[in-house]
Amino acid sequence: MTHDAPGVRGTWTDPARRRAAEVMAGMSLRERVGQLNQRLLGWQAVERTAQGEWRTTDLLREEVDRWGGLGALYGLFRADAWSGRGWADGIRPEARAEVAALVVEEVRAASGQDVGPLLVEEAPHGHQALGAELLPVNLAVGATWDAELYRQACASVATSLRADGVHLALLSTLDLLQDPRWGRSEECYGEVPALAARMTEAAVVGMQGHDRSRLADGTGVGVVLKHFAAQGAGTGGRNGHSAALGPRDLAELHLPAARAGVAAGALGLMAAYNDIDGVPCVANRALLTDLLRGEWGFDGLVMADGLAVDRIVEQVGDPVAAAATALRAGVDLSLWDRSFTMLEEAVAQSPDLLSRAVDEACLRVLTVKARSGLLGPVDEAQPSDRPATGDLSVAIAARSVVLLRNEPAAGADRPALPVAPGGRWVVTGPRADDVDAMLGDYVAPLAPDRRVSVADALTASSGAHGVVVERADADDVAAVAAADGVVVVLGGSSHRAYTDEFADNGANAGQTAADCGEGVDIASPVLPAGQVETLAAVRAAARGPVVAVVLAGRPYVLTDVVAHSDAVLLAFYPGPGGGRVIADLLLGARQPVGRLPVTLPAHPGAIPVRDDERMPAEGVYRDVPEPVLARVGDGIGYGGLDVHGVRLSVSGEDLLVEADVRAVRGDWHGEGLLLVRSRRVGGLDWARTVVVGWERASVAPGDGAQVSVRVPVHDVLRPDLPLAVLGDRRARIEVALAGRRWSFDVTQDGAGEVTVDGSRA
Amino acid sequence: MTHDAPGVRGTWTDPARRRAAEVMAGMSLRERVGQLNQRLLGWQAVERTAQGEWRTTDLLREEVDRWGGLGALYGLFRADAWSGRGWADGIRPEARAEVAALVVEEVRAASGQDVGPLLVEEAPHGHQALGAELLPVNLAVGATWDAELYRQACASVATSLRADGVHLALLSTLDLLQDPRWGRSEECYGEVPALAARMTEAAVVGMQGHDRSRLADGTGVGVVLKHFAAQGAGTGGRNGHSAALGPRDLAELHLPAARAGVAAGALGLMAAYNDIDGVPCVANRALLTDLLRGEWGFDGLVMADGLAVDRIVEQVGDPVAAAATALRAGVDLSLWDRSFTMLEEAVAQSPDLLSRAVDEACLRVLTVKARSGLLGPVDEAQPSDRPATGDLSVAIAARSVVLLRNEPAAGADRPALPVAPGGRWVVTGPRADDVDAMLGDYVAPLAPDRRVSVADALTASSGAHGVVVERADADDVAAVAAADGVVVVLGGSSHRAYTDEFADNGANAGQTAADCGEGVDIASPVLPAGQVETLAAVRAAARGPVVAVVLAGRPYVLTDVVAHSDAVLLAFYPGPGGGRVIADLLLGARQPVGRLPVTLPAHPGAIPVRDDERMPAEGVYRDVPEPVLARVGDGIGYGGLDVHGVRLSVSGEDLLVEADVRAVRGDWHGEGLLLVRSRRVGGLDWARTVVVGWERASVAPGDGAQVSVRVPVHDVLRPDLPLAVLGDRRARIEVALAGRRWSFDVTQDGAGEVTVDGSRA
Repeated sequence: MTHDAPGVRGTWTDPARRRAAEVMAGMSLRERVGQLNQRLLGWQAVERTAQGEWRTTDLLREEVDRWGGLGALYGLFRADAWSGRGWADGIRPEARAEVAALVVEEVRAASGQDVGPLLVEEAPHGHQALGAELLPVNLAVGATWDAELYRQACASVATSLRADGVHLALLSTLDLLQDPRWGRSEECYGEVPALAARMTEAAVVGMQGHDRSRLADGTGVGVVLKHFAAQGAGTGGRNGHSAALGPRDLAELHLPAARAGVAAGALGLMAAYNDIDGVPCVANRALLTDLLRGEWGFDGLVMADGLAVDRIVEQVGDPVAAAATALRAGVDLSLWDRSFTMLEEAVAQSPDLLSRAVDEACLRVLTVKARSGLLGPVDEAQPSDRPATGDLSVAIAARSVVLLRNEPAAGADRPALPVAPGGRWVVTGPRADDVDAMLGDYVAPLAPDRRVSVADALTASSGAHGVVVERADADDVAAVAAADGVVVVLGGSSHRAYTDEFADNGANAGQTAADCGEGVDIASPVLPAGQVETLAAVRAAARGPVVAVVLAGRPYVLTDVVAHSDAVLLAFYPGPGGGRVIADLLLGARQPVGRLPVTLPAHPGAIPVRDDERMPAEGVYRDVPEPVLARVGDGIGYGGLDVHGVRLSVSGEDLLVEADVRAVRGDWHGEGLLLVRSRRVGGLDWARTVVVGWERASVAPGDGAQVSVRVPVHDVLRPDLPLAVLGDRRARIEVALAGRRWSFDVTQDGAGEVTVDGSRA
Repeated sequence: MTHDAPGVRGTWTDPARRRAAEVMAGMSLRERVGQLNQRLLGWQAVERTAQGEWRTTDLLREEVDRWGGLGALYGLFRADAWSGRGWADGIRPEARAEVAALVVEEVRAASGQDVGPLLVEEAPHGHQALGAELLPVNLAVGATWDAELYRQACASVATSLRADGVHLALLSTLDLLQDPRWGRSEECYGEVPALAARMTEAAVVGMQGHDRSRLADGTGVGVVLKHFAAQGAGTGGRNGHSAALGPRDLAELHLPAARAGVAAGALGLMAAYNDIDGVPCVANRALLTDLLRGEWGFDGLVMADGLAVDRIVEQVGDPVAAAATALRAGVDLSLWDRSFTMLEEAVAQSPDLLSRAVDEACLRVLTVKARSGLLGPVDEAQPSDRPATGDLSVAIAARSVVLLRNEPAAGADRPALPVAPGGRWVVTGPRADDVDAMLGDYVAPLAPDRRVSVADALTASSGAHGVVVERADADDVAAVAAADGVVVVLGGSSHRAYTDEFADNGANAGQTAADCGEGVDIASPVLPAGQVETLAAVRAAARGPVVAVVLAGRPYVLTDVVAHSDAVLLAFYPGPGGGRVIADLLLGARQPVGRLPVTLPAHPGAIPVRDDERMPAEGVYRDVPEPVLARVGDGIGYGGLDVHGVRLSVSGEDLLVEADVRAVRGDWHGEGLLLVRSRRVGGLDWARTVVVGWERASVAPGDGAQVSVRVPVHDVLRPDLPLAVLGDRRARIEVALAGRRWSFDVTQDGAGEVTVDGSRA
């Protein structure tokens, strides 16, 4: 008997897989099915005694008894409005390692084979647990275009998770932002497949180490990348709804991040809620087995999203069929579903087909357990120290904020930002004192000593910059009129209040003040009601510059915001350090360097408008002839960058793009993003113009430098794709930097020789 | 040498095809390529002498000389703003047969093989020529749900076309309405694939006869169905943009109409502008050859849309490659393209691949010519008489108008409509006197004696109904306030003015007053600016009922219109008879019986909302929890229908739905639409709820009747589709009639026995 599918790289030569097979050999069918279930809400697995000690609950013991073990436990440490856990009753950082050990030991003891449960935690941008490192949301990460910085941050988060005894971290890295109406837009790195792929790779390498080295040495955690696949393409931006797309769009847009994550060694992938062209991902054998395991050689486990298997009961008719269908498609481990508990019955109905499938899934779960140290002797090593909290989060926030506009106020001779010394400013607006609105979805409540709003930071630090900034109500016309300038903090929020209501899968449902986050899709991706009116009123009353700061989890339509202000700072939920970062940017202690990872639409009806659409929407809609407010890569700084000379050449297997740049404008670094796009010519399909490479330019004041990007020729000419009849294989390369563009033609002749045409600026 | 591809049903036993091969045998490569071109704008092929005689132009002669013949001539009789032709200088009905004969004879004489050109004319809803029968737009046709009536109308149009000497009529029948932002929404029968399929079949049978009998007997014309395929799925409702969809959605939504048209014997299909999942239709061999000719056995010709081959030059790199790629994909005849004139060069570059492809295409074109009487002796028969103009157009219009709302005005004891006798009403609004707004796109200018607006008809005929109706300006508050009721005629228009500007392919481009039609996509599918405000002002001033009449070419968001009126009549561009029909409906001379063939969205951001989406949008958007204003099948009348007893049974290979109904409410017929929807259960995909059958109920006052629908069991259980693991094959049947719903379960057991569960009302 062999459990190896063709192309699977974990083979019998892999000790983890060998150990898993040994363990499984001693398990009954019930025990094997038990390994495939992850039913509990982890925070209900433990409780505190009157003496303040943590102990396991009857609920946990019943589940362990039922299966003779436990596959995985979701969210032991989750603290938020859905779990109801907070600082008063949740598990504090110092108790986590001990509680984890308590649970693992109890399960191991009750398991015939001494098998512990996988402790699975949400960590989409930091661990969703009290006092844990909290990063800016992924959309902010995307705006940094800085994968190395993100890798470091993920590595730091993993160190803490490992110290807490966690085995698997759930990370949203695979969703591509396709429609700003989607409430989970904030969980995407943006709309650029290559950027999502690079960030996904950084997350996996950061948490698991290169080649899983941090799992081998016990310093990291495994990652489960979600959601596989195409969840960002839900119809109308509706969460979990059908992704209407064909195989080419799937491959070009939605698979690159997953493929990069698999290549980097991710231990797990989460099958998404949505269907693709009608087939729900949990029922999609072509996706989860043929492609993922067959073509890509994925050797990890596939987890279903919460209750996703139960959802297909409506499709297939009954829960046993749902479980059988999902298992057979390639789901190994379910989340909360009732259906997957009925796999014994499914096997009884179709033993030939399903008993082997149960074994294969069980083997995969156990292999991940072996890699996570759950099948060997109990790890007696002391948990490593947690890294210092906050520095890397702030670093990402600082590199993520995008300056969209910076003009002189009427009659002024310098741009509105940074705030000129010597003045008296006011800070106002609905988000000026809203700390939670900076955090995003999937977060634990912040410790009180970390709560710093934009207004807090701005009023506190303004003095050091020779400015006075005071709070004012937005409708305090006198205060606004008297000020030398006004900062208006606007934006949305995906903050979940403890009074909110939630669906069975934890998504927001029912009343909420949030306008973003899971379960909070909106038909009009505009700022919450009244905010534009507030800004317009401030603009009317103000005599000096009006600066809008927008906190966002989605690419809002900001046309009116731009119209009513002199400067606009767009901060995708920047995390707990956001207040200080934004104050620094306003006051000139830092320079904005973020660049858009997503297109900003100019009108709520002009959706989608994406950078890589085959046919741009410009000039199409009679009522909105200019549907794009800002493009991918857009963003300005306080300094400037002169570009003199952009070259493209062939260098081995790569194209080499080089630009000579020089910092201009006073004491500021020259900052820019060299962005390389490519469009194939000569193929059977109408090729998109896609981002194929980028590099940040950062040049000290007055200095010059060379910025270069290497792009594999393969990525540009794609010799793996068919040619049109009589066509040549060519590509048009576009290079963008500092607001300018250059274009080049790359051609491959019949002999395979690649040549580059001169620049056509 | 054989030219027969597998599965092609026209074989050597087909005399038309045999004759075509004989003719082609005598042609040079240049002459064959000439048969594949349709470059000219037909109205430039003839001119009038000073004596008022029509003669051919040098332009025509040059083109004929270039190729030694002419493949096809587009739009000889087209009269509209793009062609610039009108009543002053266009070809009048009485001259058309003679002009057609002139052109055909000249081309035959100049052709070595005595081959005439196919005369190809636009006839999307009647021939786009002066004084020709003009039908309501397809969206109105869909609202009738009456395929037999439409067949008769198409037959009548074909008789006229034939009398004019036309060979091929271009009909939009294949586009499915997927996004109300699309300007060509009006050309769709709606969003229901089964309805589009039935109407397409009716159009083909009407024009060509059953089994092409009207071609054989010389009384009909061939049809070219457009656009193949999925043009309605353009991203963001943008004309000709990418259709992002997979093979399942393509098959379920966009192919049924084409397949029905092919099965009915359509002589031609037009390849669409858009790409599907990246591959432009004109380059899509899987679509145009493997599916269409291979699987479906299509034996007709594929025409490219105007300049569609030239468009892919940007994709493939040069025009020779574009021509080769389109030809090889399956395009036989191009429209206006320069690329297709370069096929000789393409053949020279790749003779093995392309010379046979040229021959195959040429043979298909010539076969259509043979079927159209262009390869035999010149037809000396006198053209048949043209049918009387207008009756069938009015009949469709009368059955298409949808009454969306009909409530008593405040304090009244009867619904607003029909207008109560004895009162004094006013008619007002921006479309009250706009005849052109009722016509739709692709129309010739109407003869002056056929110009009857809603206000014209209403004021003229009101007296006979014991009412006085007078015109008033909408801002004439005194007149509005003094009236017993107000009719406000609102809506859009796809009318093209002679001062408009056009793209190379005739689509509207540049400034226009139209808000609909080809080239007039809009980001917000709402009424033109100011109309809702006008209605609200009337509402505020009026003391009696306010009735809104909306002329529309797309499913506008009418939420505000419904809010500001007591009754709403929605008329998809009803054609030249629209004024009288609407007046009749308002005055009670007729009853509204139209039913929506499309979903009306409640909000411009809640798009798409379609009847057959796998997951409904209800309750998703936080800002628009009820995104649907009205559903497919909605619409009310003046009479009522009581339904007592709806049964579902198995009857041979069919399911039989029967309903006992009775007319209630006074002197009106009871009118209803029995609509049968089905959702498969047990498959590997998440099935849509799809319309599988319908029947109009029409019961005389006080009478009872039985309405029944037969639906093939195959269409419901789809035994051709794979089952989920362990799943049964089942379906949920929903029956809707007169605002009520019933549901049934249909199951097929292991032995193939089909059983029906009792009604669950």
